[in-house]
Amino acid sequence: LSGDLFDPIVTTDELIAATDNGSWIQAMLDAEAALALAEADTGLVPRAAATAIVACCNHERYDAVAIGRAARGGGNPAIPLITALLSAVPEPHRRWVHWGATSQDIVDTAAGLVARRAVDLIDADLCACADACAVLADRHRDTLMAGRTLLQHALPTTFGFKAAGWLIGVLDARELLRDAADQIAVQLGGAVGTLAAFGEHGPAVVAAFAARLDLDEPTLAWHTARQRVAHLGAALGIAAGTAAKIALDIELLMQTEVGEVAEPRAEGRGASSTLPHKRNPVGAAAVGAATRRAHALVPVLLGAMVAEHERAVGAWQAEWETLCELLRLAGGAVANVRDTVAGLEVSPIRMAANLESTRGVLMAERIAFALAPGLGADRARELVADAARRALDQHTTFATELRRDDVLAAHLDDAQLAELLEPSGYLGANGAFIDRALARHAKN
Amino acid sequence: LSGDLFDPIVTTDELIAATDNGSWIQAMLDAEAALALAEADTGLVPRAAATAIVACCNHERYDAVAIGRAARGGGNPAIPLITALLSAVPEPHRRWVHWGATSQDIVDTAAGLVARRAVDLIDADLCACADACAVLADRHRDTLMAGRTLLQHALPTTFGFKAAGWLIGVLDARELLRDAADQIAVQLGGAVGTLAAFGEHGPAVVAAFAARLDLDEPTLAWHTARQRVAHLGAALGIAAGTAAKIALDIELLMQTEVGEVAEPRAEGRGASSTLPHKRNPVGAAAVGAATRRAHALVPVLLGAMVAEHERAVGAWQAEWETLCELLRLAGGAVANVRDTVAGLEVSPIRMAANLESTRGVLMAERIAFALAPGLGADRARELVADAARRALDQHTTFATELRRDDVLAAHLDDAQLAELLEPSGYLGANGAFIDRALARHAKN
Amino acid sequence: LSGDLFDPIVTTDELIAATDNGSWIQAMLDAEAALALAEADTGLVPRAAATAIVACCNHERYDAVAIGRAARGGGNPAIPLITALLSAVPEPHRRWVHWGATSQDIVDTAAGLVARRAVDLIDADLCACADACAVLADRHRDTLMAGRTLLQHALPTTFGFKAAGWLIGVLDARELLRDAADQIAVQLGGAVGTLAAFGEHGPAVVAAFAARLDLDEPTLAWHTARQRVAHLGAALGIAAGTAAKIALDIELLMQTEVGEVAEPRAEGRGASSTLPHKRNPVGAAAVGAATRRAHALVPVLLGAMVAEHERAVGAWQAEWETLCELLRLAGGAVANVRDTVAGLEVSPIRMAANLESTRGVLMAERIAFALAPGLGADRARELVADAARRALDQHTTFATELRRDDVLAAHLDDAQLAELLEPSGYLGANGAFIDRALARHAKN
Amino acid sequence: LSGDLFDPIVTTDELIAATDNGSWIQAMLDAEAALALAEADTGLVPRAAATAIVACCNHERYDAVAIGRAARGGGNPAIPLITALLSAVPEPHRRWVHWGATSQDIVDTAAGLVARRAVDLIDADLCACADACAVLADRHRDTLMAGRTLLQHALPTTFGFKAAGWLIGVLDARELLRDAADQIAVQLGGAVGTLAAFGEHGPAVVAAFAARLDLDEPTLAWHTARQRVAHLGAALGIAAGTAAKIALDIELLMQTEVGEVAEPRAEGRGASSTLPHKRNPVGAAAVGAATRRAHALVPVLLGAMVAEHERAVGAWQAEWETLCELLRLAGGAVANVRDTVAGLEVSPIRMAANLESTRGVLMAERIAFALAPGLGADRARELVADAARRALDQHTTFATELRRDDVLAAHLDDAQLAELLEPSGYLGANGAFIDRALARHAKN
Repeated sequence: LSGDLFDPIVTTDELIAATDNGSWIQAMLDAEAALALAEADTGLVPRAAATAIVACCNHERYDAVAIGRAARGGGNPAIPLITALLSAVPEPHRRWVHWGATSQDIVDTAAGLVARRAVDLIDADLCACADACAVLADRHRDTLMAGRTLLQHALPTTFGFKAAGWLIGVLDARELLRDAADQIAVQLGGAVGTLAAFGEHGPAVVAAFAARLDLDEPTLAWHTARQRVAHLGAALGIAAGTAAKIALDIELLMQTEVGEVAEPRAEGRGASSTLPHKRNPVGAAAVGAATRRAHALVPVLLGAMVAEHERAVGAWQAEWETLCELLRLAGGAVANVRDTVAGLEVSPIRMAANLESTRGVLMAERIAFALAPGLGADRARELVADAARRALDQHTTFATELRRDDVLAAHLDDAQLAELLEPSGYLGANGAFIDRALARHAKN
Repeated sequence: LSGDLFDPIVTTDELIAATDNGSWIQAMLDAEAALALAEADTGLVPRAAATAIVACCNHERYDAVAIGRAARGGGNPAIPLITALLSAVPEPHRRWVHWGATSQDIVDTAAGLVARRAVDLIDADLCACADACAVLADRHRDTLMAGRTLLQHALPTTFGFKAAGWLIGVLDARELLRDAADQIAVQLGGAVGTLAAFGEHGPAVVAAFAARLDLDEPTLAWHTARQRVAHLGAALGIAAGTAAKIALDIELLMQTEVGEVAEPRAEGRGASSTLPHKRNPVGAAAVGAATRRAHALVPVLLGAMVAEHERAVGAWQAEWETLCELLRLAGGAVANVRDTVAGLEVSPIRMAANLESTRGVLMAERIAFALAPGLGADRARELVADAARRALDQHTTFATELRRDDVLAAHLDDAQLAELLEPSGYLGANGAFIDRALARHAKN
Repeated sequence: LSGDLFDPIVTTDELIAATDNGSWIQAMLDAEAALALAEADTGLVPRAAATAIVACCNHERYDAVAIGRAARGGGNPAIPLITALLSAVPEPHRRWVHWGATSQDIVDTAAGLVARRAVDLIDADLCACADACAVLADRHRDTLMAGRTLLQHALPTTFGFKAAGWLIGVLDARELLRDAADQIAVQLGGAVGTLAAFGEHGPAVVAAFAARLDLDEPTLAWHTARQRVAHLGAALGIAAGTAAKIALDIELLMQTEVGEVAEPRAEGRGASSTLPHKRNPVGAAAVGAATRRAHALVPVLLGAMVAEHERAVGAWQAEWETLCELLRLAGGAVANVRDTVAGLEVSPIRMAANLESTRGVLMAERIAFALAPGLGADRARELVADAARRALDQHTTFATELRRDDVLAAHLDDAQLAELLEPSGYLGANGAFIDRALARHAKN
Repeated sequence: LSGDLFDPIVTTDELIAATDNGSWIQAMLDAEAALALAEADTGLVPRAAATAIVACCNHERYDAVAIGRAARGGGNPAIPLITALLSAVPEPHRRWVHWGATSQDIVDTAAGLVARRAVDLIDADLCACADACAVLADRHRDTLMAGRTLLQHALPTTFGFKAAGWLIGVLDARELLRDAADQIAVQLGGAVGTLAAFGEHGPAVVAAFAARLDLDEPTLAWHTARQRVAHLGAALGIAAGTAAKIALDIELLMQTEVGEVAEPRAEGRGASSTLPHKRNPVGAAAVGAATRRAHALVPVLLGAMVAEHERAVGAWQAEWETLCELLRLAGGAVANVRDTVAGLEVSPIRMAANLESTRGVLMAERIAFALAPGLGADRARELVADAARRALDQHTTFATELRRDDVLAAHLDDAQLAELLEPSGYLGANGAFIDRALARHAKN
């Protein structure tokens, strides 16, 4: 498949492995095994049958490609896998294979197992990413740089404050993903959700099944109540978006003209096929690509909620590969950002140089506020804006232009002006906010 | 705007009002008023100035259409509103209007206020919808109907069980929406998030601001950390999808050939422009339309997370109308389903007739399980499948065809067969599961 | 990859092969070979070097999985493939490998080759699907059935008319896809589009390159002018939507309660893992799943138009796998519908029975129009609506209820009524419209 | 509605007017009037009745807000409008109002009229935008600037070449939009598409109807064959994406650190609520916001193709506001870019300064190619890369570092080096390509 060629660019080998054929086949077999055991636990199935079934539930016995092809007939991969499992289990135990369940029970439970394992990987990467952000927030607490709004210099900030903002985003994304992962449940309902074959014992089997697999026990079978799948998809989309915000900042800061940070150096990393001098932000590009694709997949899972009666015609079937891709793409985005942030090269010198490149103009708000009591807010703002415009157009300093205006000069002496134009004096509660972010991270 | 013509079909007057110009202008003014008061609370601004500002914060003083037009210049509606507010506030208080804040602080906080008010409406409708589902689940606990998978008769179920499934979906959707709504926070950071103008007092002002507006207090300003917006959008998408699943079931059950339920009757409801006999599922159509539109909007909010530095160029600006529409559409879908479920006409007679229309075939699983010990699972399944096929193709009863097969007849006598073919005897833990759902609802 | 397990359900082996690793590697090598030849054609590169390069351009020499892994460093698969090709080409020819091109030139041109080959497959399936629709339109020209609006009986139609509607949709979709495919162009610009290394010869090389590969020659390099990719993506989305509309009709007509058509029978097709009697619309489900996923991917290609300067950071990289999936999914949807329509089982008997099941009520419009001259349009409509409602609620015939109303009876005698209630007499220009559709198909 | 407040930021007053209530009501009335006239043309309806109906088809007679509210009952706005029209038309003509048509005929035809009028506005803006791009391409044919790939300096280019790339994108987008607009057709089918009431005359009425409204005549009614709507939506998405690519380049070039272009100056344009010095790229932000929203809407129209039988339950109803928004948003994006490009401030001085800021390093490819014959391609590339890295890390010139390497120095003397490092000598067929673009524009 083309994914072999393109997926490694946007995701990790671990996530590819966690969502591959083998993982899926094993997860479906884990579901069949746990079903048989849960049925034995509740006395519905002979223990010996369960044991015989469990013995056949190793994915290496089964051919994923053949099962994929055979899945066309019944429309899902559980059906041919069950056929293969039936062939593997010796009599007199065969009649208890998959007993009372429907193929959706197996596929949904397997999806839950696959998702939980992949989410565990992503969760670890979110933690590592938060750690890396926290290191930057702490280390660069006082590293001055230009704050930029709509890509224009706005007010001074510090790189530590920016990293603290990334950190909080990662912590938020992690909490949302954990919440969603906690709601991953087993699926067990039989053909229409009533667990008809189990008579009165349905609830007990579901409880045993959930306990065996350590997944959540749902109130009812959720064959066509897909809130938890959509929720997980959204949380993965948010994790990807969180990574992509950081990557966007990095690629912008890494522009030739800005040069304040650089992605980690490594042999071959960021190289071009033709330009010998290139050092491209390939990490950011991979995150951007993964996130665009991930975000587009979320509405597939939202739309899959709209399912016909007791089993959907198409909506459910659209979930499988969509969920796999979301796990790979969101997880890949997080992993790439983790690496990039952890190895980020930071240039406080370029940060300072860029901050000074507008020659004081980004202190305009402060000057206007200082003049407002004397001049009135409107008049102060107007004169300050004029001075800023002149400084930018004529390549002079803001101080020069402020002094050139007699009205302004009358209200601010040189010493006051020098103090007001000092960026490090207009950072608000920069340190306190960074501490809030670090404290929240420390508690995590 | 075209919305006047089309929005009422898909949403309620209450939600239109909660998200309209007046609500937005008032919410932005509420933010400015609360800011001034919070600044007075922390001693940064004279109390008299705050009082003067608050006195001007009534939306009826301002012209929404003019503000919309004027918003083009600065790119957001807060800027012209602040200009108008400045004109309204008398000196010497004017300099304290919007002091230390940025326009995004006002727009984001206003969005939070608008969203919270709209979510309260949606929450009430989700509760009412859950109540209506619970009534059906209880009342039709034993109303037999065909369970349908991939739109084919599968096994018997009850209408109460189906309604219990709807109920659990609504309860799940409500919890997710409440969680997301609880994270709606004030926004206050000043131009780049540091609250530069407030010096050390930034955190105290944020706390006072949040307390004044009864919104969550964020760790940091979240100008470009949009997890909470994306999360709210996803929760609204899930609420819409929950409504649309119920609507889809209803429109399918209301088909001429099925006829098991009907949307409530009302003068003009469901009428056609040309067909006098028509009674269309207009509630379901409205829900379907709203949900399709709502789901498409969720990735806009996911993508808006990817924001440049301290203020986005386009991503943030895409959120405003998207969030308004999501609130209207998701809320409209929920409200329409609430009405439809609450007034649903249910025909147990048609349910029974349809269940019987396949002449027993949907009991095939049970027969196969009953025969498996004697015949082996494969052989039992094969012979039962043949009998079912003959019954369907030749318009005979399943019982006839089962009896016609000597092998099968040898394993099941007529009395056993009659018992096995009784749908009400193969409902699993139908009642217990309905009770679980109702118990969860009762606790809510 | 998980695709091995899930893709066969939604697409064909041919489309998987046309978009797989091998096809991609070969297409990239075809681009490198054609580049060397075009450069030789224009005298920029020695013919011997071109020949040596071409000799190494066989995909079997290269390891796709290794290239996929190595693609991480530079961020696209052309870079490691070029490295491998460089190793394969003997000196003194190596310096001419990839000369003057950039990796995007190779990937974009390869994508064009892959897309064209896949689109040819899809085009053939659209033609076959149109043929199958035309057969049904012709054969069932007079097969009466209920026309259904909002899933309710509306007026009579014929199954041939319905199939003619499918046919026109398929012809429209095919034209759009052909138009988009005709715009697939080679990409050749060098690093920033100027073809700097070629001096004055750039345009000549592009022309020779396009001629060699039989793709369109663009006015300029389109590294960041992606209209044609977005357009192709949209056309694929429309092809999928066209298939899904047909599939939806089929799955609805195949419902147990409707039973007017059935998907083709085949061993194992439509089987369930637990219900022996099941014959599920698996073709329709596969089409529905593929189309949901395909539609979600289109905005990725639209968004990828928004590319930075001369090469995008993430947007371009998001196109590759998205385009592969769109080809597989849209093509799979078309192929599945082709098979389903070609082998569709049609039951004119059930169509007639369902048409009669509303006992004449779907002729209400005709009766109202007939009465309007005498009664006025409003009064006629009102009385007819009342009669229809009574017929439906009381399970009587529409004729009975019309006769029961003295006012109506005064305006229509029994013979008139019988004639007006005959469905075959109220089909409008059914035959002429079918002929228009068939004529357009014949011209194709 | 909230749109009053937010829409003006992202779109024009003309597009708001072209898609507003009044335009829609008038378009529906135009459809009813044309229907009556077409029926009179074909002898089905008395000419006097048609005249009477036409006389009532002025939108000012009808209350859009009341119609919007009343639309809830039947689920579309045509139904209450027809009711109002019926009340307005005097007897004996009333029975001929809307005769033989269905509400979808009116809504779809009206949507076509609204869309055509809005597309005409967008088309004019695309033309004006192309003109403005052509002016820049011509004027800045030789204005050197850095070509940037992945936001890093790559090779030199000219601003004229960049503008030529924008131009070709706009021309492509315009052709696609015109193609899609040409397929906008009337809708006329009656309740199920057969035009039952017209007997044999259906095709003649459709032809007359299309001629009256100057829209395309479809082969069949397309109530549930929505290819043309999806196609138009995609073309609008592509127009928006084309605008957004230009806007993205501009906002990046306008960054404080880059400063190569600026959006036009105007009173209040780009101002901040708190920062007196700000001049924000508000045009680009508006385009970005509009495009994000527009792209998300395209799948709604793709998904709306999947419509049930002869009239959809929800899919069709989702199209109306979606199409309106797409017209407003895509058109707004184009209009904003037209203004921005037409008034763009360009700084060749900053372009030159930025180009020189990497001190020759972006000529690395050229040096490597020049050295390849002597050193072999790999060795040349490696040594050049080393020199480039040293120049960047140590803030020396590329020439210095190249000369410092004895191996390189042995192959290139100072004069050769100086010539090779001249950016204006490595522009490929820059001028010829610009001419191709201008020639294509001139032919348009």
